Amino acid sequence: MKEWAYEDLIENLSQESDSKIVLVVLDGLGGLPVLELGGKTELEAANTPHLDDLARRSSLGLVEPVLPGIAPGSSAGHFGLFGYDPLKYFVGRGVLEALGIGFELAEGDIAVRANFATADFSSGRPVITDRRAGRPPQSETERLCDKLSRSIQQIGDVSIIIRPVKEHRFLVVLRGDGLGDGVRDTDPEGVGRPPLDPQPDPDTPQNRKTASVAKELIALASQVLADEEKANYVLLRGFSLRPSWTPFHKRYRLKGCAIATYPMYRGLARLVGMTVLDLEGSTLVDQICCLKEWWGQFDFYFLHIKATDARGEDGNFTAKMKAIEEFDGVVPELLSLNPTVLAITGDHSTPATYRAHSWHPVPLLLFSPWVMPVPSVEGFGERDCLKGSIGIIPSRHLMSLLLAHSGRLKRYQA
Amino acid sequence: MKEWAYEDLIENLSQESDSKIVLVVLDGLGGLPVLELGGKTELEAANTPHLDDLARRSSLGLVEPVLPGIAPGSSAGHFGLFGYDPLKYFVGRGVLEALGIGFELAEGDIAVRANFATADFSSGRPVITDRRAGRPPQSETERLCDKLSRSIQQIGDVSIIIRPVKEHRFLVVLRGDGLGDGVRDTDPEGVGRPPLDPQPDPDTPQNRKTASVAKELIALASQVLADEEKANYVLLRGFSLRPSWTPFHKRYRLKGCAIATYPMYRGLARLVGMTVLDLEGSTLVDQICCLKEWWGQFDFYFLHIKATDARGEDGNFTAKMKAIEEFDGVVPELLSLNPTVLAITGDHSTPATYRAHSWHPVPLLLFSPWVMPVPSVEGFGERDCLKGSIGIIPSRHLMSLLLAHSGRLKRYQA
Repeated sequence: MKEWAYEDLIENLSQESDSKIVLVVLDGLGGLPVLELGGKTELEAANTPHLDDLARRSSLGLVEPVLPGIAPGSSAGHFGLFGYDPLKYFVGRGVLEALGIGFELAEGDIAVRANFATADFSSGRPVITDRRAGRPPQSETERLCDKLSRSIQQIGDVSIIIRPVKEHRFLVVLRGDGLGDGVRDTDPEGVGRPPLDPQPDPDTPQNRKTASVAKELIALASQVLADEEKANYVLLRGFSLRPSWTPFHKRYRLKGCAIATYPMYRGLARLVGMTVLDLEGSTLVDQICCLKEWWGQFDFYFLHIKATDARGEDGNFTAKMKAIEEFDGVVPELLSLNPTVLAITGDHSTPATYRAHSWHPVPLLLFSPWVMPVPSVEGFGERDCLKGSIGIIPSRHLMSLLLAHSGRLKRYQA
Repeated sequence: MKEWAYEDLIENLSQESDSKIVLVVLDGLGGLPVLELGGKTELEAANTPHLDDLARRSSLGLVEPVLPGIAPGSSAGHFGLFGYDPLKYFVGRGVLEALGIGFELAEGDIAVRANFATADFSSGRPVITDRRAGRPPQSETERLCDKLSRSIQQIGDVSIIIRPVKEHRFLVVLRGDGLGDGVRDTDPEGVGRPPLDPQPDPDTPQNRKTASVAKELIALASQVLADEEKANYVLLRGFSLRPSWTPFHKRYRLKGCAIATYPMYRGLARLVGMTVLDLEGSTLVDQICCLKEWWGQFDFYFLHIKATDARGEDGNFTAKMKAIEEFDGVVPELLSLNPTVLAITGDHSTPATYRAHSWHPVPLLLFSPWVMPVPSVEGFGERDCLKGSIGIIPSRHLMSLLLAHSGRLKRYQA
């Protein structure tokens, strides 16, 4: 018996419209209460008159990124919000490394997360003595990558692109036809051991091609780095293919754009087919200026705000509150654009007390003409959202709610 | 690894009992608040002393027909309430057309939604100039169907049944052995185009048989209608087989009946194997009389009330309130029958402000000896239901709740 998958159903029911959707992602928005502030969370304790007023006129709820207890990474958190089930849609470490430094992967590219390492060749074959080559400073990483790049540009018909990341980490991109990403890591995951072979797994022609290029690359790099004291070897991990998923505009009939300052979020949005807009600077004001400048040119605006997560990871409750308050200040400007739907949520929780991404469902505010406010709601906060009319929903179902509230979803069956 | 599907689990756990379940479906029950009435919804604003009293002694919650954001049609809404997952169980347009006019499909029947159309034959082959033949009045549609019926009754070993629906629309049923419903629509979906061929898709012997009968039918109809000024051609769409799903009594060990006035809902209930009871008239009083007359003869009574949806689609908030108030008046009579379980909900929301089926979860009241009332609940309304002990559940899970509350579900696993 045929059963509709969520993705296919939405693709089948979505329709064009002139309506406009704004999705604000306050990264790591959700928090946990602290006793000192009367048992309030960051969002509850923040002074947010505009959000509180809006909450009283909105549908509230919470989104669960993956499943109870599962804290998502940034990619899983965002894929969920974009309606790409994070348990089905995920990318390898190599691709994430590329996204993180803003490297634009082309279709068919294989991205690899590489480490500079120290190897001892005294026995004839390499034995890894430091998997991170003493954690070189950034200038050193850049010099090493530059050195490699000048010597290694092509292996057979495959172009080799090398970019520094941070400390011992750098990115290798293999660009060519017929490359597979089923290749095992060469990192032996311990010192005093020889590096592993980049073995094809499973053994297919595509994976064999990648493995053979990788093997050659490691050998060439060893020659180029032979005179380096510490970084004389490279380890390769997380071979991964840039995915080609049904893009946003095809799945939702939405022309989407991203207004994000950090490369990772710009990359995640690009991966699902959004246009990534250029920004004058990296402040919230720059982001709002950009939104206003492009208003009307797109159907869907993904506005990503990083500060909430960063301050949560710092463990700085007050600074996270301030980041939320800063956003509250621009809410009237968002509303003055008169979007059909304005949704405000996060990709996951980052409670300042927890200092990391957590699994707690994330507050969601949805403002549109078709909302069901709840009279006992006082403002925008975790406990108010629990009273809301949306309930706790998987974040991967948010997109159909946004489409419905903007008149972009046809009825299911007669 | 075997995983229990909901349907199989319930079929496996359900057991016989003398208990009685009444499921009242107030079609399109859910609403949205309007400012003029203090921000109340239709259900909240209605004067419903009996429902409010009952709500304070019941378990409340909301049912979500399909998924967040998905507004269901009548069939999807009801299949969900009957425990047939609407993403797995659905019927084609032809079958819905048959249900809508109360035509009793037999197993193996192929139902087709047909249009009278105008074709121009001046070039030798037909070109559609009006896909609706000028929207003929009902009397004309009946005359045309009568004319076709008298001339076309059999094609090969297949019986042809023709019934008027409304304006240009009529129903064609193909009754015979070995017919498939995989046949493409002949409607060219535009004027100035030739009609399409009823092609088998996929190409199987069953679909080929249906396609060949359809082709012959179109040719015969053109001859019969040749002297008509406007309705001189027929277009066929939505070829669909009457489904044969595991019926209600087998899945739930429930002898179910339907007390519904509209053909569509009578047909939907018949499709899952309920007995459809005859009514003296079409008022709520007639329905209650019928319920009382048959009380004790069945295990499960599906009482369908249409007015709430109709007034919602009219955009008439007050009239929808009144329809709810009328139902409130018969609640004491329902309770006097002493059903083991009385559940009151809707197949979807039809907010008067939205004037259409919407995606909002639908209030649910469940009264039985095993309920968990919530002290802060004041009555039966959307916001009270949000406080309820059931939460927001998929409507396809309602049946197991009803069975459990009536002692009809065994424990799962020892």
